[in-house]
Amino acid sequence: VIAAEGSPFSLANLPFGVARGRAHLALGERAIDLVEAAPLLDLDPSIVDGRRLDGLLAAGPATWRGVRAAIQEDPERFEPAMVDRASLHMELPVTIGDYVDGYGGIHHASTCGQIFRPDTDGLTPNYRSVPVAYHGRSGTIVVSGTDIRRPAGQVLVDGAPVLAPTAMLDFELELGVIVGVGNEPGRPIPVDRADEHLFGYVLVNDWSARDVQAWESMPLGPYLGKSFATSISPWVITIDALAPHRVVGLAGEQDPPPLSYLRGDPAVPDLHLSVDVDGERVTDVDLAPSLYWTAAQQLAHATVNGATVRPGDLFASGTISGTDRLTQSGSLLERTWRGTEGRFLQDGDVVVMDGRVGDVGFGGLTGRIVEA
Amino acid sequence: VIAAEGSPFSLANLPFGVARGRAHLALGERAIDLVEAAPLLDLDPSIVDGRRLDGLLAAGPATWRGVRAAIQEDPERFEPAMVDRASLHMELPVTIGDYVDGYGGIHHASTCGQIFRPDTDGLTPNYRSVPVAYHGRSGTIVVSGTDIRRPAGQVLVDGAPVLAPTAMLDFELELGVIVGVGNEPGRPIPVDRADEHLFGYVLVNDWSARDVQAWESMPLGPYLGKSFATSISPWVITIDALAPHRVVGLAGEQDPPPLSYLRGDPAVPDLHLSVDVDGERVTDVDLAPSLYWTAAQQLAHATVNGATVRPGDLFASGTISGTDRLTQSGSLLERTWRGTEGRFLQDGDVVVMDGRVGDVGFGGLTGRIVEA
Repeated sequence: VIAAEGSPFSLANLPFGVARGRAHLALGERAIDLVEAAPLLDLDPSIVDGRRLDGLLAAGPATWRGVRAAIQEDPERFEPAMVDRASLHMELPVTIGDYVDGYGGIHHASTCGQIFRPDTDGLTPNYRSVPVAYHGRSGTIVVSGTDIRRPAGQVLVDGAPVLAPTAMLDFELELGVIVGVGNEPGRPIPVDRADEHLFGYVLVNDWSARDVQAWESMPLGPYLGKSFATSISPWVITIDALAPHRVVGLAGEQDPPPLSYLRGDPAVPDLHLSVDVDGERVTDVDLAPSLYWTAAQQLAHATVNGATVRPGDLFASGTISGTDRLTQSGSLLERTWRGTEGRFLQDGDVVVMDGRVGDVGFGGLTGRIVEA
Repeated sequence: VIAAEGSPFSLANLPFGVARGRAHLALGERAIDLVEAAPLLDLDPSIVDGRRLDGLLAAGPATWRGVRAAIQEDPERFEPAMVDRASLHMELPVTIGDYVDGYGGIHHASTCGQIFRPDTDGLTPNYRSVPVAYHGRSGTIVVSGTDIRRPAGQVLVDGAPVLAPTAMLDFELELGVIVGVGNEPGRPIPVDRADEHLFGYVLVNDWSARDVQAWESMPLGPYLGKSFATSISPWVITIDALAPHRVVGLAGEQDPPPLSYLRGDPAVPDLHLSVDVDGERVTDVDLAPSLYWTAAQQLAHATVNGATVRPGDLFASGTISGTDRLTQSGSLLERTWRGTEGRFLQDGDVVVMDGRVGDVGFGGLTGRIVEA
């Protein structure tokens, strides 16, 4: 039971989450209440007793590594602190200060560009030089299971703007990393030390209203087309848990070679990602052959101008799509060629994302569309 | 003395700020320590004893209005709680969750557009329909007086990207509003009720690296060209203090009329804004004839898709420029026509912004450029 065979929440995974205002670790069908387990871990319970994992992040990597190591060494010892995982109502795992959304999925970037600029490769001239990104709205990040109300916004009807519920509601499949250790102002994070600043991974669904986004984005980029909601998975897989599953994919073939501040280990987690809509599998895609810019490169880039990152900050990869548009698209924008070959999300649709490699997985990221 | 004649911090102003980890109110050359004054105000001192004004915001408008009203009624009574304002080291006034930067200064938008697209009016087709905005980085907002280190970034040299200190460091003169009362998810803020959600105004200097920004912004907008630092003034002028100084300017002439969710009172504070660089006045501009989209419209727009705003969120107006490019530009990008008619900021330059109407003013927003 405790080995949790077959579960994405294996003993090798032990991801952190928050429920009932307390930090927990998932293990198979159960979860370890870290407040209850604190005495067994020689842990100040106030570190893990709070609405978010913020106290654990503040305690630093030695603490969060120590917790997982102690449980992996002798999980039976923690039986008294275990609860039925299905009984937990999961909460947002961390307080997210700033949320940066990247554009590192090159097939997504290419296809989206081609939809609006046919007869090109779709990539802007800076794509292979700059890990392009923008800031999203941190205050509307919600945890898996939160209903997503169809947003209203300005859309063009017969060329004239009207306020209407979006007719082009979409998902975006992304991998996110959560910062665990910040940097000082003016002290960029070297690309080869980025992992030391990361706490772990979540799945991200960057819900998008394509009609709103298209009309508003000139000249400063997306705003209300994205800001209504962004969903993240509740269980944070630590950097350590995915470390044995790193593989070099597309980021190892960056051509031209990036500027030196972006040159580092190109390995990324060998995750297989999927999207189901209303129980139908619409997307199966591997991260490594699809991701041009790594999280480490995102972090090095984000701080090269002296900017700080804070514990809890979220960096999302950008939409992950493979090369086969009909079976590997990380968004319906691509899969339906902007709605001309299929439909966007309908009210009542349930979108389930997942990601897994071996015995380490996220356990799903779910959102249901409700009417405007 | 207490009437503070001639000071921007008149009894009519009484702006809130934070120093020594406590809330203060500025009055002439002095400041009232609100922790010391709490017993006189029947105030729980824990509301005003904290690193930010967050406790005061959480206490709600009746509290912050009551504090100002009690002091205005009988300022002498608060003499025992007064300190020499010059002795205070001002801190960031609020915890800023999300920072949204608008584009409401139409002359700025027009001139910037013309720099890159000559022979047009410079405005994108959505300009008069959408209060265009993007999310900035909240974690790098700093208080007046903080040195600004010249940021490095990717810039093009002979068409090839290199990592170098920006050669086009610029200021942006903006008016910011700070949210005092949030909204519930899915409950947009009506434009005519926006003021009920606002706490007050600050000046904003949205420092910009124009060369970095130009290369990175395709297709998702500004990122590192802005994220290194944004400065705000330390004293927050309340909505109430500027209410008697509202005037209808350009926002009263919106043509075509905006969509109904954006139609409301077009009055804005009748502020005169200025910028000095190294003691030389470079910009004098009035807000009302320059601002196309009001803060109330920004807030109504930001929430029309169901998004929430939180107490402490900052909305900046966008750069405020007048019609005379050489004397009324809110940025050097415009004043120098992208560096072809003058220089951007040099190391050692001190940029001082200010804003005032009658006996209500900000008391300055200062930043000094230090070398990369």
